[in-house]
Amino acid sequence: MSDTVSPLAPRKQPRMPAVPGVRIATAQAGIKYKGRTDLLAMVFDEGTTVAGVFTRSKCPSAPVEFCRANLPGGSARILVVNSGNANAFTGKRGRETTAATAAAAGKATGCAESEVFLASTGVIGEPLDPARFAHLLDDLVDRAEPGMWAEAGKAIMTTDTYPKYATAKVLLGDVEVTINGIAKGAGMIAPDMATMLSFVATDAPIDAPVLQDMLSKGVGKTFNAVTVDSDTSTSDTLMLFATGAAETSGAPRISDPKDARLSQFRRALNRMLKNLALQVVRDGEGARKQVEVTVTGAKSARSAKRVALSIANSPLVKTAIAGEDANWGRVVMAVGKAGEPADRDLLAIWFGGIRVAHEGERDPAYSEAETSAYMKQDEIVIRVDLGLGRGKATVWTCDLTKEYVAINGDYRS
Amino acid sequence: MSDTVSPLAPRKQPRMPAVPGVRIATAQAGIKYKGRTDLLAMVFDEGTTVAGVFTRSKCPSAPVEFCRANLPGGSARILVVNSGNANAFTGKRGRETTAATAAAAGKATGCAESEVFLASTGVIGEPLDPARFAHLLDDLVDRAEPGMWAEAGKAIMTTDTYPKYATAKVLLGDVEVTINGIAKGAGMIAPDMATMLSFVATDAPIDAPVLQDMLSKGVGKTFNAVTVDSDTSTSDTLMLFATGAAETSGAPRISDPKDARLSQFRRALNRMLKNLALQVVRDGEGARKQVEVTVTGAKSARSAKRVALSIANSPLVKTAIAGEDANWGRVVMAVGKAGEPADRDLLAIWFGGIRVAHEGERDPAYSEAETSAYMKQDEIVIRVDLGLGRGKATVWTCDLTKEYVAINGDYRS
Repeated sequence: MSDTVSPLAPRKQPRMPAVPGVRIATAQAGIKYKGRTDLLAMVFDEGTTVAGVFTRSKCPSAPVEFCRANLPGGSARILVVNSGNANAFTGKRGRETTAATAAAAGKATGCAESEVFLASTGVIGEPLDPARFAHLLDDLVDRAEPGMWAEAGKAIMTTDTYPKYATAKVLLGDVEVTINGIAKGAGMIAPDMATMLSFVATDAPIDAPVLQDMLSKGVGKTFNAVTVDSDTSTSDTLMLFATGAAETSGAPRISDPKDARLSQFRRALNRMLKNLALQVVRDGEGARKQVEVTVTGAKSARSAKRVALSIANSPLVKTAIAGEDANWGRVVMAVGKAGEPADRDLLAIWFGGIRVAHEGERDPAYSEAETSAYMKQDEIVIRVDLGLGRGKATVWTCDLTKEYVAINGDYRS
Repeated sequence: MSDTVSPLAPRKQPRMPAVPGVRIATAQAGIKYKGRTDLLAMVFDEGTTVAGVFTRSKCPSAPVEFCRANLPGGSARILVVNSGNANAFTGKRGRETTAATAAAAGKATGCAESEVFLASTGVIGEPLDPARFAHLLDDLVDRAEPGMWAEAGKAIMTTDTYPKYATAKVLLGDVEVTINGIAKGAGMIAPDMATMLSFVATDAPIDAPVLQDMLSKGVGKTFNAVTVDSDTSTSDTLMLFATGAAETSGAPRISDPKDARLSQFRRALNRMLKNLALQVVRDGEGARKQVEVTVTGAKSARSAKRVALSIANSPLVKTAIAGEDANWGRVVMAVGKAGEPADRDLLAIWFGGIRVAHEGERDPAYSEAETSAYMKQDEIVIRVDLGLGRGKATVWTCDLTKEYVAINGDYRS
């Protein structure tokens, strides 16, 4: 947590309702931080289904491996998350930590260890001693309450400057269900995945394979379309839990991903994933501007996304935006380095509504003053048309400021 | 040019001898900079052969396209370089500028336009008016002299904080020949190529296909193994000119790349390319430390280079080095995100001679104090052993400092 809140923080946080079937407690385990919570338990009623999407890193953390192993069971009773230490690159001891934590969590909840899910975020490469928090789990499960979402969002923060929440109510069949989500960033954020940790829970009764289908499809244009610094964490975890508690009020159980009754839920879930992903971007380390990059006219959607990410990850593009400089030459550079099909003399580039380049050169109507005024905004939209095909994609990032370097440079000498 | 010279600048510049068959002149054309030279003409005697390697950007500059078209002729009489404007993404007008410059240069030199080579460096996307300098070419060719290499290195600088020179004398057969090189960086430096501009000339009599063979092979472990910011310029150009003047003193003409008499020359050329490439890294924008990254034990050399570049381009690794923080957890992250074969629990990592991680966890003998002391050095060496195979590669980069952001952010608001 930082003393200075991002200028892009939401003006108002949503009031998070309870999700029937979910109880929450947090604690100060003192793993690294002092004077704040760093341990979260989310306890789920029996019958809760689960889906997850994890980092594509070849060197994932021990908790990621633990969750991947349990995911095929499709059933969850407790999620334990700690901040301050990622339990990543901790070798055999890392696995011992997840095993000990799972044993303690299973015992506290009265469930199988295969129904336990774990996540850790913070420093990489430092052993995480489960004795620091495993003894707290009995108490956490005992005192867990439905209405603690605000506390949950705070306990998982690391360098975030604000907690990230989203909530929605939608109809499943004729019955209103709730979806709540929390997330944390804020550096080492790149596809795929694009957040360190995010957890979403609902009382809708949805079978695990359907949940997984929705989540896997939902991340492509949301969490997997944001990047802060092109660095992919070893620990990225997005999980979706469905307690099914709404079944008692008459909500239909969904067992088929094509079920038409799911459409409103799916749209709301995708909106929530995008909302949480953008909150991560807007709290990117040192971020002062949100940047949306849309590429159209590419040979394919895949090609468009690659070009868009090349622009969004370019240090020279991102520093120019930090400097409020409409440096579209650097956008051309980033298109060129992506390695995807592109024809310089067909390119057109817009900053907001202003076309700055056309047919491979500066737009004849280009106005430095007008463009400079636009660059002062908090939210910058860059559009590039490649003029080759129909492929398009949008990704989001933030600017690259001196504060990013300061936060990560830890000039401790 | 910057007022503050990089702390990694060479303590002493080499005295650059003349290269027989090469004459040089510079001028103040006032293209962008005031009070300094920004135009270079390098005039070659008849019979000079040429080789070149250029950016792999899909949106190359007009001069790069012009040089590519002339290169198959294998013959060079004049090189014209301007700084301050890259003539990149300038559309049809960009081609008109190269055509007009080539016509003026050919006329001044009395050669075909196919023997003219051009390079431009500076702002992208601004039209470059050839009238700013084409009229100066007659005078430049007239007053060109052999001993002007120091001036040549200065005229091509942009954000460089020092000019970059290298020189060597080697035997070709029994005859001593000279090789001189100049280069300029200093941002938008990434494979492939890894410098904005570099020009090397020799009086050795070497046929163009042999020159091209040596240059293409030489860049892999030199210019194509350095990165400042992962951003690839539209204008990267490396050219090698051989006047053949040493033939008159008895040097043998080399027509076969396998000619054994070439071995000393080839080694000297490769050393020079590495020397110039490292000078570019050491003058990377805002750089305060040179970083060498070696990956061993990869499945292949290609895989090793990809992992090494993933480490060298990671903003989180580079900011940690700027902060003199031996944050090997971020090195693990960068290994994991490279997408290449890697097994977390086989990884070993060294900072200098200190093994910080072994078999996927912190080395039992790890000493924070010893490692922190090492990180204060100017030149940091990171080695990662993947433990999978025999592939290895070394790349070079610099740290990422607040000054990089300041230089490129142009906080002009």
